[in-house]
Amino acid sequence: MTRIFSSEWRNRKQIECYDPFPVHTLKRVSRPTTAINDHLVRRWDQREHGFSRAGRGDFGPFVAKEQPRFVQKHPLSGSLVTMLGKLAYLVDEEQRLWDGPFANNGAIPPMRPTAATKAPGTDDPHSMARHIKETAYFLRSDAVGICELPPYAVYSHSAYDGKPVDLQHKYAIAILIDQDWRSAKAFNGHDWISNSMSFLSYSTSGFIACVLADYIRSLGYSARAHHGRNYQVVVPPILLWAGLGEMSRIGDIVLNPFLGPRFKAAIVTTDLPLAVDKPIDFGLQDFCDKCKKCARECPSKAISDGGKVIHNGYEKWPIDVEKCSSFRVGNQKGAGCGTCIKVCPWNKPYTSFHRMVNWTMRKVPLARNLAIWGDDLMGYGKPDPTAKWWLDLEDVNGVLRVPDNTNERYR
Amino acid sequence: MTRIFSSEWRNRKQIECYDPFPVHTLKRVSRPTTAINDHLVRRWDQREHGFSRAGRGDFGPFVAKEQPRFVQKHPLSGSLVTMLGKLAYLVDEEQRLWDGPFANNGAIPPMRPTAATKAPGTDDPHSMARHIKETAYFLRSDAVGICELPPYAVYSHSAYDGKPVDLQHKYAIAILIDQDWRSAKAFNGHDWISNSMSFLSYSTSGFIACVLADYIRSLGYSARAHHGRNYQVVVPPILLWAGLGEMSRIGDIVLNPFLGPRFKAAIVTTDLPLAVDKPIDFGLQDFCDKCKKCARECPSKAISDGGKVIHNGYEKWPIDVEKCSSFRVGNQKGAGCGTCIKVCPWNKPYTSFHRMVNWTMRKVPLARNLAIWGDDLMGYGKPDPTAKWWLDLEDVNGVLRVPDNTNERYR
Repeated sequence: MTRIFSSEWRNRKQIECYDPFPVHTLKRVSRPTTAINDHLVRRWDQREHGFSRAGRGDFGPFVAKEQPRFVQKHPLSGSLVTMLGKLAYLVDEEQRLWDGPFANNGAIPPMRPTAATKAPGTDDPHSMARHIKETAYFLRSDAVGICELPPYAVYSHSAYDGKPVDLQHKYAIAILIDQDWRSAKAFNGHDWISNSMSFLSYSTSGFIACVLADYIRSLGYSARAHHGRNYQVVVPPILLWAGLGEMSRIGDIVLNPFLGPRFKAAIVTTDLPLAVDKPIDFGLQDFCDKCKKCARECPSKAISDGGKVIHNGYEKWPIDVEKCSSFRVGNQKGAGCGTCIKVCPWNKPYTSFHRMVNWTMRKVPLARNLAIWGDDLMGYGKPDPTAKWWLDLEDVNGVLRVPDNTNERYR
Repeated sequence: MTRIFSSEWRNRKQIECYDPFPVHTLKRVSRPTTAINDHLVRRWDQREHGFSRAGRGDFGPFVAKEQPRFVQKHPLSGSLVTMLGKLAYLVDEEQRLWDGPFANNGAIPPMRPTAATKAPGTDDPHSMARHIKETAYFLRSDAVGICELPPYAVYSHSAYDGKPVDLQHKYAIAILIDQDWRSAKAFNGHDWISNSMSFLSYSTSGFIACVLADYIRSLGYSARAHHGRNYQVVVPPILLWAGLGEMSRIGDIVLNPFLGPRFKAAIVTTDLPLAVDKPIDFGLQDFCDKCKKCARECPSKAISDGGKVIHNGYEKWPIDVEKCSSFRVGNQKGAGCGTCIKVCPWNKPYTSFHRMVNWTMRKVPLARNLAIWGDDLMGYGKPDPTAKWWLDLEDVNGVLRVPDNTNERYR
């Protein structure tokens, strides 16, 4: 359905706009709306990610025990992460022989290598930026942006093999995939579908990124896909510079004006010369300053209702990584948690009514208090059981069973 | 975007309708609208497929020479078929060590096996049929249908290893993916994007089918994904019985009332007990009898403008497989061919206007002549160069170059 509806939009805008969302209505700015002290940001060691720390016991033995099963324990997120594990071998042209949880038993046939000769007509950065975006939309991406790859967005070390990361690509293409509105409407934020929503977006964006990177290599330029099982890059700064969102109160989460926080991203890094997008300003700093609904509803109290801080050179709202990761990994009455996504007033379907509210929230600062007040009044953020479609199941020692308990909220 | 818009529809229909298209408005019938003499249909040897025959020289040495490169010669369809080749290893829980064009260099880590224990709550065929469809839509399918797997829809022999096919699953779930309306609007039917459109749908539906089959196995039921690089089943009879379309004048092509012929399908076969859909009747036999636009525009003259015949037990319009396959494989001024898809009056975007025309074509027989006449009058079927987004490139001996010639049409 993607292309059908986006074409309906495109029919009106033709050449000027090939994005499915009206990104041309966004205010562009020279730098992200939250300060990044480029020279102060240290490269991040992927082994310091919350889930890595959870796995090695930094948050206690219970969370460490749960970490290897917290995605796999529901059968659907289990299937999606299994597929994502396969896509880990397809990010570039290398043969991979990893150890660990995503071990390959032998040599995987790789994707295609970088062609020896650059394809004709690929040397104009503006036309190629447009072409790459249109290709990503053809491949059914929901949103796409391009930036120069900030050196500080490259991990210092990989969590998968512990080795230093050496990634010299100049550009980054970010591909966003919606976590599914209907599920977002139905779930309460931390019942049994949350991880499946995340891994739907991780695996689908990863699939697209692997194809797109192969395509760019076939044009004669080095390219690598980065996705939920094989990132060599930190995603949030790339999304900021690529104009796909602003930093939100939900800790390190970049919020997209049309998808809200309801997405995951895959990245393709490349040497293909590309014109870059500019960061956007849709008033989110003011909005998140006022709203605080995610902080109020967070079941682990990991989200702050206070002001922004400077952390590793980034201006951002603080997040308690231990509380957030421990709750998601250790959730015994559900699989993962996305309550912040659930309750965010920007998590809405793209209907005529919500398009109008969305425009108003972006353009009219005084309307934001009304939108925040109205969001609670209209009952948004509550689960809609009529839209529930998934099975509450939990793998316990290799056998699926109906869980003893499910988190409830607003019932 | 899929889910956003489909939800908009769902908001209105809630529980009764979880399909993104209004399939509940379709007339259901007990048998497909074209006769299938079930006891007369022989199982088909996959090696007798047009592309297999093209490869082994049945259509002459030139077509045989072109067969191994005709998808790979454009860089984007090359990337998509490369990915589809990887998905060939992920259709079930088996380790695959094939020879031939999709050879694996070693053992591929398989998807998950069938769980030893059936998951609780999975024994009601009606609720599971609904759940499986909703899961497939969650995974971003465009249309889904379920039928019992007709024994004659299983290939007798595989084209990949030449071995007899033994597939005992009782049910088939069909997953349709749109070939992209914008590209369909832009291309002329046999320029350089046609194969990419096919393989977008093959690879995306294959990706979803591999995840869905893994999920069903995790629930404790045998399941296998079948896609463009690993079919063990013949697709058209499954689509007919699953209520996803009627046989069309375009030879063996089943036409969906909402996507037209602009899709490819992957299939999941399984032993999970499922309530099945019924075949549909939206007047296509009358429509195709009158329209004949595909026959008129087919560049290889493979499509008949005459009446239906009985072939291998199926009532269908005849197709000249040699002409069709030879043109697609041998096309020197483009990559593949989908002119029949391009010019079909059912190949339309899902806009308000076209929804109305679509409803009228389905429900009002007398309006069909008007629709057919109006389709030509409005210029549908002509390429729209303002929507063109792809690069005309051709791999010649490992180097991409701008093709010397491109097929033109209506210019």
